[in-house]
Amino acid sequence: MDLSEDQLIEAIARVLSGEEPGVVVGIGDDAAVVRSGAGEAVLTTDLLVEGVHFERGSISARDLGAKAITVNVSDIAAMAASPRYALVSLGVPADVEAAWVIELYGGMRDVCAEHALALVGGDTNRAELIVLSVAVVGEVAPGRALTRSGARAGEAIVVTGSLGAAAGGLVLSKAHPSKAAGALSESWGRELIKALARPVARVGEAQVLARAGATAMMDLSDGLAKDLSRLCLASGVGARIRTDDVPVASALAAGAGVLGVHPLGLALSGGEDYELLATMPQEAVAAARAELREGFGVSLSEVGEIVDGTGMIAVGPGGVETVLEPAGWDHFEAG
Amino acid sequence: MDLSEDQLIEAIARVLSGEEPGVVVGIGDDAAVVRSGAGEAVLTTDLLVEGVHFERGSISARDLGAKAITVNVSDIAAMAASPRYALVSLGVPADVEAAWVIELYGGMRDVCAEHALALVGGDTNRAELIVLSVAVVGEVAPGRALTRSGARAGEAIVVTGSLGAAAGGLVLSKAHPSKAAGALSESWGRELIKALARPVARVGEAQVLARAGATAMMDLSDGLAKDLSRLCLASGVGARIRTDDVPVASALAAGAGVLGVHPLGLALSGGEDYELLATMPQEAVAAARAELREGFGVSLSEVGEIVDGTGMIAVGPGGVETVLEPAGWDHFEAG
Repeated sequence: MDLSEDQLIEAIARVLSGEEPGVVVGIGDDAAVVRSGAGEAVLTTDLLVEGVHFERGSISARDLGAKAITVNVSDIAAMAASPRYALVSLGVPADVEAAWVIELYGGMRDVCAEHALALVGGDTNRAELIVLSVAVVGEVAPGRALTRSGARAGEAIVVTGSLGAAAGGLVLSKAHPSKAAGALSESWGRELIKALARPVARVGEAQVLARAGATAMMDLSDGLAKDLSRLCLASGVGARIRTDDVPVASALAAGAGVLGVHPLGLALSGGEDYELLATMPQEAVAAARAELREGFGVSLSEVGEIVDGTGMIAVGPGGVETVLEPAGWDHFEAG
Repeated sequence: MDLSEDQLIEAIARVLSGEEPGVVVGIGDDAAVVRSGAGEAVLTTDLLVEGVHFERGSISARDLGAKAITVNVSDIAAMAASPRYALVSLGVPADVEAAWVIELYGGMRDVCAEHALALVGGDTNRAELIVLSVAVVGEVAPGRALTRSGARAGEAIVVTGSLGAAAGGLVLSKAHPSKAAGALSESWGRELIKALARPVARVGEAQVLARAGATAMMDLSDGLAKDLSRLCLASGVGARIRTDDVPVASALAAGAGVLGVHPLGLALSGGEDYELLATMPQEAVAAARAELREGFGVSLSEVGEIVDGTGMIAVGPGGVETVLEPAGWDHFEAG
């Protein structure tokens, strides 16, 4: 295919453009927002395909089911909405046991129960490889959905939790078995694998950030550098990130030597953390941080600020400035 | 896999059972019905996988996109609801051109426009084969969704339009090129292919049937015999079908000799017609038929009646009775 994912989404958005009655937020954000009765509904869908998003041998059916729901719930959370209903489409090859499918649904049920989300229907089919598509419908008070496009110059850039653990887990899952066995005997190794297999969606946390005055928000699925570049593009702003303030996951820092990875590089460019990235007035950060810590035991790091213009700058130790590319990885991997 | 699709859905429904707040109709019907604000939302999803549901070479991107929306809209229609919003998850292999994807979305847009349905978002990914999952959200007045479970003994069984054309199109699409070329020079051949490639969802028709007093309804995706067996199971009833009254598509009747198929066999067992199957009091049929003909130019055939007990009987010419198996096909194919 001759277009990148972002270019393709833009091309599709053009095909579909036009006044759509009832659509508050259309294609291009974490989720769509539509008018529904007296309120607003938030809609999202994600597709997991064997060989692209997971390998059958490297994730349990239960974890896969849990993760399929979590990634969608995370998109709903990123709009400051509450997930309500899930739909599942499943394609399974003939050699997959019914027990595997039941476990998969068990994992979905686990996460649905955590978020009081009802799994209400779906479609089950034969396919040549495992295909799992989940759609989630959420609710939000009219006008309260938080998009990617509200960031303004001077605002703080904040992220919840810590970054890079899932990417570290991915590196570990692909490591030579002898290295992996050693890593899994250490708590950092188990934490990295768990971060990859059982990410957590920040539903309540997102609502705290929204109430605290967040102006733009999204979830971190493709890495801080890439996702922040999308937020900046949607808001028409630039960003400065202070690399010393990026909250590198402690398990990643502990295992980086064994794994041969650069922890800051993975924290900036590694995907699948499902933490929240938000912007808010600088004076609102302290209260939001205190409420997240008390209510959820989750940290909030102020990693930089929104600036006028376009593009992203990484400010390193001693104030050294470099351009932060959306890909993030290569620069910091080499550094 | 060691369970049939229906057995698997039942097993999944058991895993997921439990009181779900806000869920009016859960897994197992054409679509789920949930409370949403002051009204009810209707949710459905369908998955189309290359090699299982379509072959890339035998359907255009535009038709595929149109069909992906139609099959979901048909599920919403079968609940007597109105489709409002669609979400699309797409997986595409690297060798698929962006132009193909744009055409696919063009086909989706065509059908969305027909039904005033807004395509509001989705997810685009790399995959090893083309995977297309659509979810549609519809609306219905509280308590007005029509499930499969309301059929009662003595009621008429009705179907809209005619049956078997899509199945005939499938046979034709797999025929030897020399036979196919001949068939496509005839209007019946083109009609069969069109029925397969561009099915029509009966949204307005379903609402007419609901207002006319339909007690149970579903769309015909897997053939009359199979789908009626599901409606009977859900309603706890049996059925008698008069084979002479089954509306065999005229294009199928015209081409059956060339294609070497039994027209009634395909009309009973062929899938993908997306016509409506409903039950209603016998005295309500005439008015519903007149309104469908006037409003939509669509026929309504009374093909049999609901009876006490279980199982289905086919009543043939001269009153000869045979058991109608859900598979339908084999018996009538041989006959």
